[in-house]
Amino acid sequence: MSADDETLTARARKARVDSMQRHVLVCTAGDCPSGEAVATAMKHGVALAGARDRIGVLETLCTSICKGDGATVVVYPEGTWYGSVDVELAERIVAEHLLDGQEISDEVFLRNPLGDPPSR
Amino acid sequence: MSADDETLTARARKARVDSMQRHVLVCTAGDCPSGEAVATAMKHGVALAGARDRIGVLETLCTSICKGDGATVVVYPEGTWYGSVDVELAERIVAEHLLDGQEISDEVFLRNPLGDPPSR
Repeated sequence: MSADDETLTARARKARVDSMQRHVLVCTAGDCPSGEAVATAMKHGVALAGARDRIGVLETLCTSICKGDGATVVVYPEGTWYGSVDVELAERIVAEHLLDGQEISDEVFLRNPLGDPPSR
Repeated sequence: MSADDETLTARARKARVDSMQRHVLVCTAGDCPSGEAVATAMKHGVALAGARDRIGVLETLCTSICKGDGATVVVYPEGTWYGSVDVELAERIVAEHLLDGQEISDEVFLRNPLGDPPSR
């Protein structure tokens, strides 16, 4: 590992992405005004729960999938896609899915945990 | 599933995120000018290889981890973090990691595939 890599590894530790167990992507682009509010609500909820070392929230540009009425939120490693997320739903996702491990099935429009397809 | 969910599911299919096997996050924020060029190069390489149905490239805001000399790129589901990515390295990541399945170990500063920690 080079000295440069060590710098990045140290920064990763400081940003707590080395200990993350869930990485949450929040679309803050496009026409929908709620993305930034959703991202802020999720970061706030995670911090309040003392879970910043295991849950990371990352803002993204356009996921190409929304109806303009809320943010698209993706949770890895499950590959859970929530649509039309407003602040109220964002708070539920933090409490129920991220902290309690209970996906909010009614609000999910896609599940894709990635990985290789089944062998044929 | 509601009619609204069906719309989102149809859009997910159109955006090919339902068939993705790799989701690549490219930081295009901050002081580093290469993020957008890296994202463009990766999207171009994936499209040229005819792999848009299985490899998705998503631009993100700040990951909190860089040295200002290139983009941070994360590949899921492996949870491979590449630092200081320029266009040349971006093209290698597409060819070697995403298409051939061979991670470029020398350029990786963190691996975190997420998921629950080992039971204690």
